[in-house]
Amino acid sequence: MSTLNRETTIGVEPNSYEITTARDFDAPVDKVFRALHDPELVAKWIGPKYLENVECTLEARHGGTWTLVQRDPDGNEHGFRGVVHGDPTPELSQRTFEWLGMPGHVSFETLRLEDLGDGRTRVHGSSVFMSVADRDGMAASGMDVGINEGYERLDDLLATL
Amino acid sequence: MSTLNRETTIGVEPNSYEITTARDFDAPVDKVFRALHDPELVAKWIGPKYLENVECTLEARHGGTWTLVQRDPDGNEHGFRGVVHGDPTPELSQRTFEWLGMPGHVSFETLRLEDLGDGRTRVHGSSVFMSVADRDGMAASGMDVGINEGYERLDDLLATL
Repeated sequence: MSTLNRETTIGVEPNSYEITTARDFDAPVDKVFRALHDPELVAKWIGPKYLENVECTLEARHGGTWTLVQRDPDGNEHGFRGVVHGDPTPELSQRTFEWLGMPGHVSFETLRLEDLGDGRTRVHGSSVFMSVADRDGMAASGMDVGINEGYERLDDLLATL
Repeated sequence: MSTLNRETTIGVEPNSYEITTARDFDAPVDKVFRALHDPELVAKWIGPKYLENVECTLEARHGGTWTLVQRDPDGNEHGFRGVVHGDPTPELSQRTFEWLGMPGHVSFETLRLEDLGDGRTRVHGSSVFMSVADRDGMAASGMDVGINEGYERLDDLLATL
């Protein structure tokens, strides 16, 4: 069995509108899919550790909406929302993403779960922004910390499912 | 009063993920907004003239869905669908767009209506694709014909509202 890559590979090519991610998990595709699409489970892992997820909803169907509210240690709340495009499957799960602090600046996210065999899964992510500037702003926002800390919590959660 | 620009300005910059459009209409913002968001009206103008719009639905609210089915002279049907992000307003109307002939290749559309005064409106459009290749494919598909012929029909429709 090859070694799992638990570091998230983050791709930010110059002048691109896109950020790509790839991360391996020691859990089968169906469990990873559930942890990514059941809002009660998502609330347990998503985001950086210093933020508390105080609201998390997700209707995993074409036209469904999702929301996320995170509270920082000072009590400030940060809201996010989007809509689901297509009925999500492990092969293709797509949605819009908007931070309510920058309304109208929306990105389009695609997740694909790859079966690595031996009960392991690689999660491929793509976020396409409305401009290179929007993309660069997200890339400079410390998103790598949020992704890596969130995926570490997801490791722990998957071990309990 | 300045001259209206009834030719659609289409922007396709090299290596960009985006197509931009701009087109002026001799109608006030509220009428243009209605013609762009009432599916019974949309069915009367959208697309190139050689295609018949046989199905057109649009729920103009956050999480709403839209569909379009166009029939060509040979009887072949072409389906499109998407979801609405945010409650559409004249200032900001956003949605996803997918041609069912290339499932999973989705673009994100933004429309902004600019009041030009004297009962005239400029429609600014942006479509961001998931890759430069997807964008180039759309730009080479004859979309300019569809846009221009559709907007000419929209001119005629707006005169009746």
